[in-house]
Amino acid sequence: MRTGTPVTVLGLGLMGSALAGAFLRAGHPTTVWNRTTAKADDLVAGGATLAESPADAIAAAPLVVVCVSDYDAVADVLKGPLHGRVVVNLTSGTPSRARALAEEVTRRGGDYLGGGIMAVPEAVGTADAVIAYSGPRSLYDAHGSTLGKLGTGLHLGDDPGLSATHEMGTLILMWGMLDGFLNGAAILGAAGVSATAYLPIARTAIDTVAGWLPGYARQVDDGVYPPDDGTVDTHLAAMAHVIEESETLGINTELPRLVKALAERAATEGHAASGYPALVEQFRKP
Amino acid sequence: MRTGTPVTVLGLGLMGSALAGAFLRAGHPTTVWNRTTAKADDLVAGGATLAESPADAIAAAPLVVVCVSDYDAVADVLKGPLHGRVVVNLTSGTPSRARALAEEVTRRGGDYLGGGIMAVPEAVGTADAVIAYSGPRSLYDAHGSTLGKLGTGLHLGDDPGLSATHEMGTLILMWGMLDGFLNGAAILGAAGVSATAYLPIARTAIDTVAGWLPGYARQVDDGVYPPDDGTVDTHLAAMAHVIEESETLGINTELPRLVKALAERAATEGHAASGYPALVEQFRKP
Repeated sequence: MRTGTPVTVLGLGLMGSALAGAFLRAGHPTTVWNRTTAKADDLVAGGATLAESPADAIAAAPLVVVCVSDYDAVADVLKGPLHGRVVVNLTSGTPSRARALAEEVTRRGGDYLGGGIMAVPEAVGTADAVIAYSGPRSLYDAHGSTLGKLGTGLHLGDDPGLSATHEMGTLILMWGMLDGFLNGAAILGAAGVSATAYLPIARTAIDTVAGWLPGYARQVDDGVYPPDDGTVDTHLAAMAHVIEESETLGINTELPRLVKALAERAATEGHAASGYPALVEQFRKP
Repeated sequence: MRTGTPVTVLGLGLMGSALAGAFLRAGHPTTVWNRTTAKADDLVAGGATLAESPADAIAAAPLVVVCVSDYDAVADVLKGPLHGRVVVNLTSGTPSRARALAEEVTRRGGDYLGGGIMAVPEAVGTADAVIAYSGPRSLYDAHGSTLGKLGTGLHLGDDPGLSATHEMGTLILMWGMLDGFLNGAAILGAAGVSATAYLPIARTAIDTVAGWLPGYARQVDDGVYPPDDGTVDTHLAAMAHVIEESETLGINTELPRLVKALAERAATEGHAASGYPALVEQFRKP
């Protein structure tokens, strides 16, 4: 028998299905809705209730988790009454749209928490899945234990747009890392080395950089960039080598060229002998 | 009393000084040379012998570690006799120049190992400093225990250019990660969040991506990219959000624009519903 707080999940893509599945496994009466109902089959077999419309799904539970493709889809599914509902929006979007949505939900008598999922669907429901929420602290405290069934919760602050801002900071780091890895795999691949053989060295590089970041974060906050582990100029020389070799190998040079252009601008602006974090000033400019 | 194998270190920048210091601490008679001799002061105070010329330094020991600014500087310091010397070149450069240098050293009666240091100077001399070597396996085996004083050694293969290739694969990953972090810090900074506050979430993102890489490496090697944790299309939508928000915040959009352009090309070529590693095919193209 399901005895937890009733919950509703709107949107059953890979991530939405994982969220609903985690609630079900934790014993919550779970109502679901999706534009194409077939995606609900496994969840219904597992004990979920399929609602006929988003409004019916919202009426079924005080806590409504929304995880759809974008904010237009969010606006669509939230058209019905929201009075007394807590809307937890885990859909990706910009902070400004999150703030506008929070205002609208509040105006219509509901409460709003924004959230960003820093995990893959398979990790949802385990402590490994970190979900960062933003919105009224009291609201987060009231529903933290239910939301805790989805993963490790983190409250970032009262501004409902904050979780979207953090998500963007996370995404650009992930893409930089992923593109760096795939570009590295292309370089090694052109030299006859498999990506699997590249992996241990890539892992060492990741651990090394991760170890620098606490110090780099302080430097970024202080605006002082001592060249503890190499100067922008040293990096520039190595960047030129990577571009030269990529041309020799006949592979893409766009990422090393952008990386070099940013470092060159930092050098031109007086940071040739500074440490790498000086480049943050370039990222701050339009 | 110093009783280990005599060693020579040519070049006393941040990294060269760290290498010489590690040999000294391990008890090796250590000869050093640098273009500007003042940089040798601390090492000489610690027991190193300062040679008057690169040729004198090379004559002083059978194992010669070279760590200078670039390959032109390497050619300069290796002008003298090399017969019977093992040259271990830890200078950054392209694989093709490493191979050419290996040939020249061999022609002149010496032996050659290339190496790439995957660590900051402070880590040199500890197990945390990974140094990847390439060149004849027998040569690496003969000198592995001496080179082990510098850090954890790794032999990549007989091709003397391999360590340079690996270094390039490592560097582009490091820059992608660093630029992603600094761009993320710029996004959060514009929203009033410090880089130090961004750090824990950045760390979570790094651990998440690092966890994907073994599977991604297999996909890259197999050329099959199942959308286990999101499709290229899902990423594209999020990329558009990051660009939009970066414009709203008035910060740089170059990195997310490049990331999006590469993903768009992958989508256009039939990988819209594939997983992210499909982008490796874009990095393989000139």
